[in-house]
Amino acid sequence: MVPDNEIAPALALPDLAAIRAAHARITPHIHRTPVMTSRSLDDITGATLFFKCENFQKVGAFKARGACNAVFSLTAAAAAHGVVTHSSGNHGAALAWAAQRRRIPAHVVMPENAPAIKVANVKGFGGIVHFCAPTLAAREALCAEVGRTTGAVLVHPYDDAMVIAGQGTAAVELLEEQPDLDIVVAPVGGGGLLSGTALASNGMVPGITVLGAEPLGADDAARSLAAGALQPPPAAHTIADGLRGALSPRTFRALSAHVSGIGTCSEDAIVRAMRMTWERMKIIIEPSCAVPLACMLEGTLAVRGKRVGVILTGGNVDLDHLPWQA
Amino acid sequence: MVPDNEIAPALALPDLAAIRAAHARITPHIHRTPVMTSRSLDDITGATLFFKCENFQKVGAFKARGACNAVFSLTAAAAAHGVVTHSSGNHGAALAWAAQRRRIPAHVVMPENAPAIKVANVKGFGGIVHFCAPTLAAREALCAEVGRTTGAVLVHPYDDAMVIAGQGTAAVELLEEQPDLDIVVAPVGGGGLLSGTALASNGMVPGITVLGAEPLGADDAARSLAAGALQPPPAAHTIADGLRGALSPRTFRALSAHVSGIGTCSEDAIVRAMRMTWERMKIIIEPSCAVPLACMLEGTLAVRGKRVGVILTGGNVDLDHLPWQA
Repeated sequence: MVPDNEIAPALALPDLAAIRAAHARITPHIHRTPVMTSRSLDDITGATLFFKCENFQKVGAFKARGACNAVFSLTAAAAAHGVVTHSSGNHGAALAWAAQRRRIPAHVVMPENAPAIKVANVKGFGGIVHFCAPTLAAREALCAEVGRTTGAVLVHPYDDAMVIAGQGTAAVELLEEQPDLDIVVAPVGGGGLLSGTALASNGMVPGITVLGAEPLGADDAARSLAAGALQPPPAAHTIADGLRGALSPRTFRALSAHVSGIGTCSEDAIVRAMRMTWERMKIIIEPSCAVPLACMLEGTLAVRGKRVGVILTGGNVDLDHLPWQA
Repeated sequence: MVPDNEIAPALALPDLAAIRAAHARITPHIHRTPVMTSRSLDDITGATLFFKCENFQKVGAFKARGACNAVFSLTAAAAAHGVVTHSSGNHGAALAWAAQRRRIPAHVVMPENAPAIKVANVKGFGGIVHFCAPTLAAREALCAEVGRTTGAVLVHPYDDAMVIAGQGTAAVELLEEQPDLDIVVAPVGGGGLLSGTALASNGMVPGITVLGAEPLGADDAARSLAAGALQPPPAAHTIADGLRGALSPRTFRALSAHVSGIGTCSEDAIVRAMRMTWERMKIIIEPSCAVPLACMLEGTLAVRGKRVGVILTGGNVDLDHLPWQA
């Protein structure tokens, strides 16, 4: 890996020491989530699976880790005017939660058509919501404007070395408990979790295989790794709303260096894997979280006979609208 | 407690030694389920709650414990012709599962209108299903007939000292992990779980308070304890289908001696408590399992300020028909 002092700040990535420092920083605030197993899913996949249950994490998703690390690593002067991000999903709620714990303001830019429950979730953690038109350009523009007018520090959902270091701490805990894994799998959207997972796993267990999992309807990471160059994101069409983000140059760099492959899966497999996990494990996971198992069901991740860690990313689901009840 | 050698066999109950023996007997077969906590549910109830997650147990319910103890405590001669029970719910599946592990037949009498998924579940564990008219009289008659013609031993869902001993092992594990609880709460239908929980808890922690929780629509246990005599069961109307059974003289005796009170709750509270657990804890519980929390929400269990163990009984839910989507 290229030392950080020789590369552009926009490409900087955390090393294992930075991820361990993140873990020490956030441990007082987060849950150490359990690692669960399932004989039934082992039988179905032919692998021995170890599920790191970040659906039980604060705010119901691993995003609490990265947001917490970013917020608590700010100097007092930098933190004084709060933080800002744009997110309609778990990162917005996670940043509001982390900022509330540090008693600084969190500004969250959300599209004006965001579901009321997601807006209420951010506000429930004391977040200040700013509405914008539902386009990426509008979100980024308003986010920049809020930063300028308030002095709040931008905490990007994934294109941020401190966020990536925080997300990597789930793999640290998983490998502390199960050091003899052959493979670790995480879903990939913008690539923050997969980057952190790969950097932590390769640092802790040299020779371990790290794989990504992605919906076919948002497969820019798989295509980028295959092409060896960052590909333009597709118009993402997937129920896995947490995985619609596109890789950044930073996360592409991490994945290129440390990830062995990315499985892809159909929408149908995502719904089947989600329901199967609810039925067999009696735990609630969101569609994005089901993508690694969906890839195993469709045979696009070579896990048979292996000991495989899977990051279960989150459990925030609208219980009034389940995907198998279309 | 009256020594077992001075009372009728039909009233016999296990003591702590018998429950510990059951635990040793079934430990190779069952999961040691985790104990989970929830800051959010603590805030709502004003108590400090410790949830023993039997929804993660084999067959998705604590019933695996009692069935397993009953099956594995049979002599080889007694076990030779298998076991029989009548149950349309978790006990039938649990008995089939336990018998399969001992490689003996399990006959399960089910009403002819039982949901296909429950029939498939019993058959999935190798159980032999016998259909009868959907009345208690028909169930008991066919159960007795199957016993006579096959030589199978009856394993009653709750009116059985070995089943009660097995059900008590969940409280043993809970109190091994959290010995300083003030209160343990379990739902009550026929009273097998609550009897075992009370006998184990009082044996392990003298002075501990054991409470039951019951739907208002099937409140024979609450009325029986209040009257000091077994009351006739109501025509049970409740979504908590696991709690429609009525106390037997045996379980009434256990509850009279060892349970301090029974909270009751509305159907609406059961649905709210079930959904709240799904949303806040990200785990799947069935309606019967939500009854203790429902009683806390309605203020019929005095838990405020206390450290309270709650047996989460099961997680078998029809995901196509959720109770808040009526």
